[in-house]
Amino acid sequence: MKIDLNSDMGEGFGPYRLCDDEALMDVVSSANIACGFHAGDPEMMLRMVRLAKARGVGIGAHPGFPDRLGFGRRDIPVSAEELRAQVLYQLGALSAIAASEGLSVDHISFHAAMGNRVNHDPALCDLVLAAVKTVAPEIIVFCMSGSEIERSALRCGLKTLTLFLADRAYDANGALVPRGVANSVIKEEMAVRARVKQFLETATVTTIDGQTIAMPARSILVHSDTPGSLELAKIVRSEIEATGATLATARDVIA
Amino acid sequence: MKIDLNSDMGEGFGPYRLCDDEALMDVVSSANIACGFHAGDPEMMLRMVRLAKARGVGIGAHPGFPDRLGFGRRDIPVSAEELRAQVLYQLGALSAIAASEGLSVDHISFHAAMGNRVNHDPALCDLVLAAVKTVAPEIIVFCMSGSEIERSALRCGLKTLTLFLADRAYDANGALVPRGVANSVIKEEMAVRARVKQFLETATVTTIDGQTIAMPARSILVHSDTPGSLELAKIVRSEIEATGATLATARDVIA
Amino acid sequence: MKIDLNSDMGEGFGPYRLCDDEALMDVVSSANIACGFHAGDPEMMLRMVRLAKARGVGIGAHPGFPDRLGFGRRDIPVSAEELRAQVLYQLGALSAIAASEGLSVDHISFHAAMGNRVNHDPALCDLVLAAVKTVAPEIIVFCMSGSEIERSALRCGLKTLTLFLADRAYDANGALVPRGVANSVIKEEMAVRARVKQFLETATVTTIDGQTIAMPARSILVHSDTPGSLELAKIVRSEIEATGATLATARDVIA
Amino acid sequence: MKIDLNSDMGEGFGPYRLCDDEALMDVVSSANIACGFHAGDPEMMLRMVRLAKARGVGIGAHPGFPDRLGFGRRDIPVSAEELRAQVLYQLGALSAIAASEGLSVDHISFHAAMGNRVNHDPALCDLVLAAVKTVAPEIIVFCMSGSEIERSALRCGLKTLTLFLADRAYDANGALVPRGVANSVIKEEMAVRARVKQFLETATVTTIDGQTIAMPARSILVHSDTPGSLELAKIVRSEIEATGATLATARDVIA
Repeated sequence: MKIDLNSDMGEGFGPYRLCDDEALMDVVSSANIACGFHAGDPEMMLRMVRLAKARGVGIGAHPGFPDRLGFGRRDIPVSAEELRAQVLYQLGALSAIAASEGLSVDHISFHAAMGNRVNHDPALCDLVLAAVKTVAPEIIVFCMSGSEIERSALRCGLKTLTLFLADRAYDANGALVPRGVANSVIKEEMAVRARVKQFLETATVTTIDGQTIAMPARSILVHSDTPGSLELAKIVRSEIEATGATLATARDVIA
Repeated sequence: MKIDLNSDMGEGFGPYRLCDDEALMDVVSSANIACGFHAGDPEMMLRMVRLAKARGVGIGAHPGFPDRLGFGRRDIPVSAEELRAQVLYQLGALSAIAASEGLSVDHISFHAAMGNRVNHDPALCDLVLAAVKTVAPEIIVFCMSGSEIERSALRCGLKTLTLFLADRAYDANGALVPRGVANSVIKEEMAVRARVKQFLETATVTTIDGQTIAMPARSILVHSDTPGSLELAKIVRSEIEATGATLATARDVIA
Repeated sequence: MKIDLNSDMGEGFGPYRLCDDEALMDVVSSANIACGFHAGDPEMMLRMVRLAKARGVGIGAHPGFPDRLGFGRRDIPVSAEELRAQVLYQLGALSAIAASEGLSVDHISFHAAMGNRVNHDPALCDLVLAAVKTVAPEIIVFCMSGSEIERSALRCGLKTLTLFLADRAYDANGALVPRGVANSVIKEEMAVRARVKQFLETATVTTIDGQTIAMPARSILVHSDTPGSLELAKIVRSEIEATGATLATARDVIA
Repeated sequence: MKIDLNSDMGEGFGPYRLCDDEALMDVVSSANIACGFHAGDPEMMLRMVRLAKARGVGIGAHPGFPDRLGFGRRDIPVSAEELRAQVLYQLGALSAIAASEGLSVDHISFHAAMGNRVNHDPALCDLVLAAVKTVAPEIIVFCMSGSEIERSALRCGLKTLTLFLADRAYDANGALVPRGVANSVIKEEMAVRARVKQFLETATVTTIDGQTIAMPARSILVHSDTPGSLELAKIVRSEIEATGATLATARDVIA
């Protein structure tokens, strides 16, 4: 069984860094690269592309709202047309930088508030993904299973890869338990390992209220902008390898 | 004889406009579209692409330094690697927006201080244009005849289109007389018309000190960020048509 | 009777201008100067201060959200603490530039979405205005009569100056008719003159549905970011003078 | 003997941090607070002011070029008037935030490229510092002994406080040895302690070539944007205390 392990990368800016991108790039199989709006800048994007290339890591665009101060976590009121143009802009920018290194952009993974916005508006989601398809027909859309983004990608004829968050609790509907809720974030290494193992072996997850539900994901997402993210990624990777699964880029997983 | 008429477009930002882009788009055959660094934003770029598409105007990337406050006219100290990444980023961003409308980016025209920088550094110019070629091998590089950008483009195997500025005085070496110098800008309509006519009929220009020199250009550039730019563009166009030349996009001119 | 005539000024940025600030500064008695967040930059602010000083025009801070792309018209989700700090920051920045020219900031007038935000949240309004009072106890708060901003300013012990918009229709509650509604903007010169005359002579306005209501304002606001704003300001000023009222700065009006 | 220990603080932005400001604020006696141009934002400035207030740390403005991407380390080509307005803007912004907490700005310390610019242009330095004096006549200018900034401050009638860098080598002229040079940065704890001790007891420093020269400084600067800065600050502070000197704010040192 092939499984992808992905993380957001290059989310620094100028002198700033949010994580140790070099070290994290050694662990993941896919990198969601910030495209200069909520984070990142052209030089940093180029550096991420080169790091990924040297390690055979797949690269994806990680577009966000033009909002450095809020790190793309604020819901900026932009029109549908603006949002669509912002996604194309960011995707194209990364594509050119990737192309200059002989690579293509394998996937797209929306960042934070932009992801929430499109995920809650089917018409907007279709507008954006149809435009993405025109520009990059073979691109893989990262999404949660059962999400609007997944449905929209399928409507648009785009490939998808569904995500599992190993360190986050799910409810009985398969939705993430919000961070504010007690036990919404799983921090103990053994618990995370057990969840990864269960997910890989049975394609299920145990919900916060003890039910077992299907988790038909093909990729594990580890957030990079939290303390201990590198260690979490290493734990997940070692558990993947212990389970006998094969780490693979998004492109290889869906091949 | 085919001749291109180009201007910088979409150089506004948010609520701001530098010229009447809609009206100017009716006059030119090629549009150099600002790519969001010195000016422009994704929505404005999309609007420019659509305006160009509706009129059959060729589109080009007009990359500049990331410097809105200085409008790309200040020499920002960026490294060669940064500048290269910034050009790729902007070119890619416009390419994706163009692709979403079924168009490709025909040409590239460097803006202000970024253009001066690359034009005064052959190694930098080669670095940037080689990267551009990797991403867009068929792109046409706009340049002054005899410039470093022209030489570099030829070294890199890129197509070029040389420019003539109808309202600016030239010296005996074919270089533009700096704006500060008396009579460096030609403002009288009849004088501009005469220069366009001479250029089209004899491929020459009369220098500020009365000499006649060769002006092997295939495109006329009208700056859009000066008062009266729209009127100047109309004058140049009417003179082109009066002379019997055919207005054509950059792509058609070099075909 | 003394009446103030004010407008938003210095709302350009870098190479951009939204209106002819120099000409408008000849017409108004108070200038609301953009403070570098939604518009304006330090050099432009200094220029506005000098223009105002040379004409005896009163100066005020015109703080907005940090949102150049949206020109401060979008409701950016900032916390109460952030908004408070943003207002202090902008007010202080203008105060120092004014002080370097020997002037003090007479008033404060919130811009667009920031104004709407504070005006719809009494607790936020109190938080912000209490902080403003600590920094500038003598400042005059520009507001609509009956607004939350007015009530909050009075609660905080700050002076206020209420505004009348000569070119905008009011409803029976004294609220502005939204721009989208038919006849919400009065464009005919004679109608604007009649409204100014009625306001000055009887302190009333005729509502969109024909009622006469009290308009206890002491200042007329003319927006500068609409076509014809300079002409409108001149019309209002000439009508003020024809009516025998005396144009005065905010400071003089409330003295 | 009273000695000040200062560091640059609040040089993060949005989600980013360059150092542990809270911990560092426990160690220093003066904080140079970034003012939103090269780093910092209004909320962060407010947080710094509150941290300083709670610990009795003196606060100063740390203005820089408007250049987040370059962190104020690039020489941005701004005119003298622009630079002057940018300094006033930043100083005023911090002053208002400080005033809202009942504090005043004690000192000013120019950041990186802006500091270099004014320090190499006596006329510019006088222009800027004369404007600063108009706005804040009691402000203390942080500077290197023998620098143009020191001379200009004295010409303008401003107070000064001269700085010693405990971890940097000096040449025989009392100038810092550039970072690129071997042994320009002293990293061994014992060596740093010895230098602080020598400086405090004899007001001298041993140059990189073994000479003993006068070091008439009253404040020790520890850069915060380098790894180990917090530890270095603690070492310097413990050595100050071991030597029997009294840590004091800039205001107290020059009282």
